[in-house]
Amino acid sequence: MTPIESQIMKWQSVPFTKVNIDDAFWRPRLEVLKHVTIKTCIAQCKETGRISNFAKAAGLMDGEFEGIYFNDSDVYKVLEGAAYLLMSNRDPELESETDRMIELIAAAQEPDGYLCTYYTLVAPESKWTDMEKHEMYNGGHLIEAAVAYFEATGKRKLLDVACRMADHYDRLFGPGKRHWVEGHEEIELALVKLYRVTREERYWKLALWLLEERGHGHGKGEIWDKEEWGPAYCQDDVPVRDIERVTGHAVRAMYLYSAMADVVHASGDLAYVDALHRVWAHTVERNMYVTGGIGPSRDNEGFTTDYDLPNETAYCETCAAIAMAFWNHRMNLLFGDAKYADVVEREMYNGALAGISLSGDKFFYVNPLASKGGHHRVEWFGTSCCPTNLVRFLPSIGQYAYARTDDGLVVNQFMNGEAEFEIGNGLNVKLKQTTYYPWDGKIELAVNPERTGKFAVRLRVPGWCRGYKLEVCGAPLFGAEALTDRGYLILDRQWSPGDSIVLQLDMPVEVVRARAEVEANRGRLAIQRGPVVYCMEQADNPELNDDAFALSPRDPFHICYRPDLLGGVTLMTGKEENGKPCVLIPYYAWDNREKGFMQVWIREVENQLLYLY
Amino acid sequence: MTPIESQIMKWQSVPFTKVNIDDAFWRPRLEVLKHVTIKTCIAQCKETGRISNFAKAAGLMDGEFEGIYFNDSDVYKVLEGAAYLLMSNRDPELESETDRMIELIAAAQEPDGYLCTYYTLVAPESKWTDMEKHEMYNGGHLIEAAVAYFEATGKRKLLDVACRMADHYDRLFGPGKRHWVEGHEEIELALVKLYRVTREERYWKLALWLLEERGHGHGKGEIWDKEEWGPAYCQDDVPVRDIERVTGHAVRAMYLYSAMADVVHASGDLAYVDALHRVWAHTVERNMYVTGGIGPSRDNEGFTTDYDLPNETAYCETCAAIAMAFWNHRMNLLFGDAKYADVVEREMYNGALAGISLSGDKFFYVNPLASKGGHHRVEWFGTSCCPTNLVRFLPSIGQYAYARTDDGLVVNQFMNGEAEFEIGNGLNVKLKQTTYYPWDGKIELAVNPERTGKFAVRLRVPGWCRGYKLEVCGAPLFGAEALTDRGYLILDRQWSPGDSIVLQLDMPVEVVRARAEVEANRGRLAIQRGPVVYCMEQADNPELNDDAFALSPRDPFHICYRPDLLGGVTLMTGKEENGKPCVLIPYYAWDNREKGFMQVWIREVENQLLYLY
Repeated sequence: MTPIESQIMKWQSVPFTKVNIDDAFWRPRLEVLKHVTIKTCIAQCKETGRISNFAKAAGLMDGEFEGIYFNDSDVYKVLEGAAYLLMSNRDPELESETDRMIELIAAAQEPDGYLCTYYTLVAPESKWTDMEKHEMYNGGHLIEAAVAYFEATGKRKLLDVACRMADHYDRLFGPGKRHWVEGHEEIELALVKLYRVTREERYWKLALWLLEERGHGHGKGEIWDKEEWGPAYCQDDVPVRDIERVTGHAVRAMYLYSAMADVVHASGDLAYVDALHRVWAHTVERNMYVTGGIGPSRDNEGFTTDYDLPNETAYCETCAAIAMAFWNHRMNLLFGDAKYADVVEREMYNGALAGISLSGDKFFYVNPLASKGGHHRVEWFGTSCCPTNLVRFLPSIGQYAYARTDDGLVVNQFMNGEAEFEIGNGLNVKLKQTTYYPWDGKIELAVNPERTGKFAVRLRVPGWCRGYKLEVCGAPLFGAEALTDRGYLILDRQWSPGDSIVLQLDMPVEVVRARAEVEANRGRLAIQRGPVVYCMEQADNPELNDDAFALSPRDPFHICYRPDLLGGVTLMTGKEENGKPCVLIPYYAWDNREKGFMQVWIREVENQLLYLY
Repeated sequence: MTPIESQIMKWQSVPFTKVNIDDAFWRPRLEVLKHVTIKTCIAQCKETGRISNFAKAAGLMDGEFEGIYFNDSDVYKVLEGAAYLLMSNRDPELESETDRMIELIAAAQEPDGYLCTYYTLVAPESKWTDMEKHEMYNGGHLIEAAVAYFEATGKRKLLDVACRMADHYDRLFGPGKRHWVEGHEEIELALVKLYRVTREERYWKLALWLLEERGHGHGKGEIWDKEEWGPAYCQDDVPVRDIERVTGHAVRAMYLYSAMADVVHASGDLAYVDALHRVWAHTVERNMYVTGGIGPSRDNEGFTTDYDLPNETAYCETCAAIAMAFWNHRMNLLFGDAKYADVVEREMYNGALAGISLSGDKFFYVNPLASKGGHHRVEWFGTSCCPTNLVRFLPSIGQYAYARTDDGLVVNQFMNGEAEFEIGNGLNVKLKQTTYYPWDGKIELAVNPERTGKFAVRLRVPGWCRGYKLEVCGAPLFGAEALTDRGYLILDRQWSPGDSIVLQLDMPVEVVRARAEVEANRGRLAIQRGPVVYCMEQADNPELNDDAFALSPRDPFHICYRPDLLGGVTLMTGKEENGKPCVLIPYYAWDNREKGFMQVWIREVENQLLYLY
């Protein structure tokens, strides 16, 4: 094996249907998604004409196309989210609603497989003329919805629509056929998903071809003519295997890299491995907020220059945080390194989660790390990609918790619940996780193979954790088995029914400082505890004024779990420079009460300390 | 009250006899002191002629003075240590031994009260001619021993000797009498102790006068003529109230500042307050090792330039670490700020404790923070101040645990055991502390006043601690009462018999970095957990070579308490840069096994992390 081959782990996702979440943190959020968010999103899709566009394209009702050319995608994303909810709870009311939507979608598909209501209704003669018009972006979301719906319900109708459409693409595009650089990546990762469920290799090969189209001057359309951005805006500036730096529109970039990881995973072709490592380091080490937010600029909804991470004007689109989780989940499966799952965790508890109100019916598109009080969640957007991304990201949170390996299983995220694995030798293993994560660092695992057998249990030790204790079947471990490898404890041994693991992660308050290159954060600190980044909000600090306070790293915080507040949060109470109490709450929970300032990066009292912790 | 007056708290020590230590960490050490160390030191004092010098001076035996002119002080320090041991366990064998020593000391005192066997035996005509010859330094240690012995046994004999000697000083020196700048401070703090037990104000006034003598050109003797040092070597360069910077010989400086704090405490005179704050900041913020060690230079056994903190050549005399604890304990009592108790703690678990072997019979004079393998504890020294300082510091460790205030009591250090307080209004309070400190951060306190009453319990939250939880009588606290003031939680309320407090300090692994000004530590990190600074030693890391390894702040440590190792320690196991396991042990426990390298400040793997914890 070459060094590059030896990096490839090719771990597998655990089917959602095999992961049950019974968690004090996530379960109430999943309930809100089921009872509020999905209904809100379906209602909005109806009210804004997004669903009737399909009826109109199908000729089932009269009227013009409403909204923006990529509005189909929102309907697909809502369907995908609904599918994840149906996986854990086959709610007949929801399913009949989604079945009706699928009927309309199927009806809107053209005989050759083409499906994009904007072109069907507005400009049928202009199909495939402007690569920025999201035809395949819409198609990609259709595929993702179809795969999820098939897995949730066993119903093939939407999957058949998706296959017909993908086959249509495959007839039009590919080696020796027409060039195409889809302006907004998404189709590529979707085609790999379609391959996984259909086992039709032509789908990942089409994805590979689409990736290979980029960076050769084939891109054409409005966006390519926009001088200030250039082709880097949609990652069409260099061939993907030559990518060195994260550029352009953040969501597009993340979807691209996700697809690159998927194609390596599916094809075994190693050509993208180096590019993936390079661009990951460039993204995470120079262009990611402490919340996991990415893309500082409103102008291009994306990246600017290294270390340009302003707080108040941070764009940090919710979709970009979610897309960062998508990409990092794939990197984790591909390379088997916990550092990628660390990023997934960062998004889960911070950058992505902040996008939705505790009530489940209001959303941020933009996620600044500081506010003077004028930034608030709203019910819907003209471009409403963020609510519809949340509605598919959050109910699928269980997929990030575990993975399967050739030799066993992986615990990547910590949440109460059970999961079932069929591991290498056909052995079935049930795993039960008991924890109060993210508020407490103790994780108990009950390992229950159907019979005694040898396999490896990998436990992630998060990157924020400096110290841990580990017991297996009541005995503390020593030596190499108690040490991490690429961020994992690897317990490779005979396991019997009733075996147990207790992992105790130190979960202290951490003072976080940014590299000096990040100008916005010089002289500032952030506070994190476990995976949760904290902020100060006016609501808890009525006597303080925006940025007119500072914290000393010498002053400790009182830690208290408050079940009555903000859906149950661990509060931190400390003192600001003038001795006034100050309260910090999790960043994800901000803007759920009255208006006022919010800050993640807080001024640090100048100090002369010789030793910094 | 002026701002400066309002800083003065004047807390009181708790009598040793009222503090019982029943602690897994300290009790075995106290047993070793009783069974090994005190006997070793007495035997060495006999073998080296230190005790027979008194017999000779008394005319009870023939022979010349043996050893160095300050050797009397070692006998006094051993007596003082013995007294502390007798306080908790009135061992008749030890007491008859010490009584015999005291007989000889009393016999050696000259009729006018003068007592210094060197001058009596060697140069009686030269008394009080060379201020560097430690006449009063010896006298100061006699006083400290006498006070301790009186408190331990109720026997006045040595105290009477001490008073006669102090009265002799008082007749010779003082306003309008002869000038005197004692070359090695010690007498000043001792005179305040003598005042406290006798209530004779002339003793603290003589201490004040001696302090005021400094910095006016009155100093005379060999040391003043040494060009490269000048009068700063013994803190005679400026009047003490004008001190800005820590200078010269480290132990002398600490004893001086201790006396300054004592005199403010005894007199209420605020003239030294500003100087004390200045010199404390200068010492702690620019001239203290992470272990609490001070005085980097072998040349002057003391200070050099700011931030000059080399590791392998660090001098860090054991006595200086102990003296730093003495001074900071006094600062804590005077100003009521936990930051001083933090330094006491740093010395208790690191800088001072490293001075003695686990077996209790070998000692470091010099405490480097790195060694290639050539530095080892030995049984005794020609100048044997360090063993005899340890033998009085360690058995008195209980005195640092608590303090009394006008309105209640203070818990400064955490150790299992009981203490009794008579607080302001005559109320007796018993306090029981239950903890596995320093290996665990949970501290349970049973508060038992003899009847219900209002008083304040102050709990120190250590400076290394970023987060804590607090419960009183089973209920979590909120609001201002749960926040620290000058490092203390102040629980000022009605307390009834059977009340309880649970303080849970986060005690994670901390990565410590030094300010960039500390050249020796650039690109290096240290590891601390709770109050304990860690090091890497060859014995646990046979495959590693000195300084040919590095740690990444990304790699976590496995934490494991090992009762079988080094008297019971919490081990940390991590990985060095090449993936080899590496084991860290508490710094205080190094050089108790086979020879080899040792490092506190370990090279840090260069990293590109955007956020540092």
